[in-house]
Amino acid sequence: MSKGLLIVVSAPSGCGKGTILGEVLKDPAYYYSVSATTRAPREGEVNGVQYHFLTREQFEENIAQDMMLEYAEYCGNYYGTPLAPINENLENGRNVILEIEVQGAMQVRKLRPDAVFVFIAPPSVETLRERLVGRGTEPLDVIEERVAQAEREIGFAQQYDYIVVNDVLEEAISDFKAIVRAESCKVKQD
Amino acid sequence: MSKGLLIVVSAPSGCGKGTILGEVLKDPAYYYSVSATTRAPREGEVNGVQYHFLTREQFEENIAQDMMLEYAEYCGNYYGTPLAPINENLENGRNVILEIEVQGAMQVRKLRPDAVFVFIAPPSVETLRERLVGRGTEPLDVIEERVAQAEREIGFAQQYDYIVVNDVLEEAISDFKAIVRAESCKVKQD
Repeated sequence: MSKGLLIVVSAPSGCGKGTILGEVLKDPAYYYSVSATTRAPREGEVNGVQYHFLTREQFEENIAQDMMLEYAEYCGNYYGTPLAPINENLENGRNVILEIEVQGAMQVRKLRPDAVFVFIAPPSVETLRERLVGRGTEPLDVIEERVAQAEREIGFAQQYDYIVVNDVLEEAISDFKAIVRAESCKVKQD
Repeated sequence: MSKGLLIVVSAPSGCGKGTILGEVLKDPAYYYSVSATTRAPREGEVNGVQYHFLTREQFEENIAQDMMLEYAEYCGNYYGTPLAPINENLENGRNVILEIEVQGAMQVRKLRPDAVFVFIAPPSVETLRERLVGRGTEPLDVIEERVAQAEREIGFAQQYDYIVVNDVLEEAISDFKAIVRAESCKVKQD
């Protein structure tokens, strides 16, 4: 059996990343990497689904034993990517999707030359703004902050291997699947 | 409009290259590069379809003016790839398929860093032999020569960007299309 593909995915919020990945993850050939955190579970969150909830001691023990692919401390809590389930699923021939923000992705870039990096982008910043305004769920100042954050993230897109522009959702899903399929035909240069 | 993709395709004979490309070329977004030659047209061959038939003077004039992407002399006749239609179609946003044997492909490799190189391979040399025997159109010694030639060509496969294994035809066609689609999402590293 051939090994699975490690696919690192980043996207500004509002780009439809959740919808695209939800569609892709219907295929049991994919495994979604669940992050670990030391923050307390919120109402309705289930251990192993939204996050692996660890104590601070457990998390630091994982760091000490090199069991986190990457991690960061944010607002006094650790967040990180457990390494073992990623490697196990790859060995079992499943493609692993690691959804992570750009800074984390750039860390993983250095550690995992075997990974493929996909950035999901809006057709334009203006389209993103219109979509967020159209939803009508957030005040304009929050929308402007999210748009500004998206612009900063899009600045990193050129450091990914592929950019999937989510203009028409079905096309973006086909692009994503084509990338995974093409990568499985790729000649490994070593 | 974005530029088309130059796709260089090689395959040993008997690998189903013609069937795969025939399917892909049904899409008008693709242009098939027709070679030029100085050999005389055979019965039924049409200028501009099987080949562009040129005189020796015309061909050498083309060489002198850098209008051939690559060329070779074989059995006293020139064979080559006219550059102008390739570049025109790429500019017009069409993907150009250049079907060429491995030596020519390696020449193009040096000249066109913008091209994508796809090698179509049989699942195994043994499968190729069985297919050729199964057809029953050639004597065994010819089949063995073709199999030996295929093995030599497969030795170059690792120098291509992608290998499409033609085991199940529909899967091979999907692989080929996925490669083109994924390449259009690729971040150009420069």
